[in-house]
Amino acid sequence: MIGVGINGYGTIGRRVAHAVSAQDDMFVTGIVKNSPDYVAKEASKYFNVYVPSEDKIPEFEENGIRVKGTLDDLCSDSDIIVDGTPEGMGERNIKKYREYNIKAILEGGEKASAVETSFNAYSSFDDALNKNYVRVVSCNTTALARSLYPIHSSYKIKNVNAVILRRATDPNDSKKGPINAMEPSMQYPSHHAPDLQTVIKGINILTTAVKIPTTLMHIHVVDVDLEDNLKEDDIIDIWKNYGRLLLLNSSDGLKSTAQIMDLARELSRNRSDLYEIAIWRDSIKINNNKLHYIQAVHQESDVIPENVDAIRAMFNLLGKDESIRKTDSSLKIKGGIF
Amino acid sequence: MIGVGINGYGTIGRRVAHAVSAQDDMFVTGIVKNSPDYVAKEASKYFNVYVPSEDKIPEFEENGIRVKGTLDDLCSDSDIIVDGTPEGMGERNIKKYREYNIKAILEGGEKASAVETSFNAYSSFDDALNKNYVRVVSCNTTALARSLYPIHSSYKIKNVNAVILRRATDPNDSKKGPINAMEPSMQYPSHHAPDLQTVIKGINILTTAVKIPTTLMHIHVVDVDLEDNLKEDDIIDIWKNYGRLLLLNSSDGLKSTAQIMDLARELSRNRSDLYEIAIWRDSIKINNNKLHYIQAVHQESDVIPENVDAIRAMFNLLGKDESIRKTDSSLKIKGGIF
Repeated sequence: MIGVGINGYGTIGRRVAHAVSAQDDMFVTGIVKNSPDYVAKEASKYFNVYVPSEDKIPEFEENGIRVKGTLDDLCSDSDIIVDGTPEGMGERNIKKYREYNIKAILEGGEKASAVETSFNAYSSFDDALNKNYVRVVSCNTTALARSLYPIHSSYKIKNVNAVILRRATDPNDSKKGPINAMEPSMQYPSHHAPDLQTVIKGINILTTAVKIPTTLMHIHVVDVDLEDNLKEDDIIDIWKNYGRLLLLNSSDGLKSTAQIMDLARELSRNRSDLYEIAIWRDSIKINNNKLHYIQAVHQESDVIPENVDAIRAMFNLLGKDESIRKTDSSLKIKGGIF
Repeated sequence: MIGVGINGYGTIGRRVAHAVSAQDDMFVTGIVKNSPDYVAKEASKYFNVYVPSEDKIPEFEENGIRVKGTLDDLCSDSDIIVDGTPEGMGERNIKKYREYNIKAILEGGEKASAVETSFNAYSSFDDALNKNYVRVVSCNTTALARSLYPIHSSYKIKNVNAVILRRATDPNDSKKGPINAMEPSMQYPSHHAPDLQTVIKGINILTTAVKIPTTLMHIHVVDVDLEDNLKEDDIIDIWKNYGRLLLLNSSDGLKSTAQIMDLARELSRNRSDLYEIAIWRDSIKINNNKLHYIQAVHQESDVIPENVDAIRAMFNLLGKDESIRKTDSSLKIKGGIF
């Protein structure tokens, strides 16, 4: 049993904690929380709570939260740390993990250069075998890898163009915006293109990112130049074998991200999350070897199964297919055609 | 075991179906769905699906949903119907329920005059004993009754003024608005004031309603003129005994409806719902016998426990306190001070 410490219990950290708890080959040693808020109060009912440093302890205990120790103690108590701290902190934290001679996973906000390899379960599982420092790529990059890798590994992709419509902020945030504007990034390609190349080596891709005033999901409008003369059904036949892709029809009433996230509630998922990338089946079109499709990405949760698989790869617990199957079954990820 | 049919499987209907399934003295005979969308597809895994009329059957079966029968069949198969059809249809449907000699519950969109009595578990449980046609008042009226009745029954309320900031639409809707405007109602008092008087007889209240561009919750700013000279703690001491009220502190990071609904996800509730009315403890102020407080209302789910209790009252299955206790325990409603 691998002991997994969670440093940072935000959007990703708390979901990784839940997912790790659902496995039988790993367990949560504890979580590090920075402030004694409502999330910490709830977490303390299920997990050992640690703090970044000793001076934080009184603040937690005044709020009735028992503290097990500091981040240093958690490092001593764990085989690996999943680092869900704010962007940029993970790279600094690696020094500490090295001191304690433990492995660590960073999340997609960190630079690829901070770790030995970047991770997506479908496209780069084996690169992480026995590694000590691995980065699970961001929600958007994970989503692109999920739908593009299956095509890339069966047919030749000449190049990809993707427009990434990003949700402005997460549902639990009431500070950030925009709340009534669209904000295009002037960086071209946006960081998603080089990021995807860390997990699908050599793929030609250009990306444009625009922030949209919504909290629910991202949407990707993807255009792929194919080498081969394929039909829509050829693509669907590939995708339907990948459980982390969910093919939806807008004619089922799933017209927007509002209804897709409503479906996640109907599916009784933990926190009403949708781990799968939702691809509108009726958006899939091929004309003159050009494939077009639209997918929706639940930014809070799509990378969660990858974190579990990355742990397995880093300790060489299971092979790629077995690990994915085990993770999907434990989190009730089914995919296919809804 | 009381057989409960659900006519209309929208925001309220599907939640009542779940809540009834969680009881041991009633069960769901089936649900009526109007279109074979994603919600119907999921529902068909757990419940018998009926349709409003025979001509709908082919459409459902083409979409792979097995149909058990029509609304008429469901009426034959049930002891009571919970009618969650769109506003105004419930009153017309009562004719059919009478024909089949079965009881029925209408929801808050219907007129008080359509039924024998209106229902809130705290304030008017006994009025519904053995009745055949009962209306569970709307989400906003339920929320006002929940926080005002405990005060009203212990002390004398001279009058109430409430400003009701209504969410524009529900999270699964992507058509209605406003999405970038606030829309005050010119009806004064808004319908909430007379509606509250159907469940707290004789209470003096005036209400103003304003639509706000958000989907998460309603907020009520409530001012109460008290006869007695009370302290904030007197009010909290009363409220904390009512499980369907949850007292929160903004200092726990619960600053907006965004974080309150995030808390519901952390609590692992069905569909990430919050049945309790959330009252900000730090909003509670008393000056010169004037009580002021702010509460947040999860419009999709707060009336769900009332529907279960209304069924028990109408069949005289349990007394008020026992029914409330049983419902709350089955739905993990705890309330108190978070």
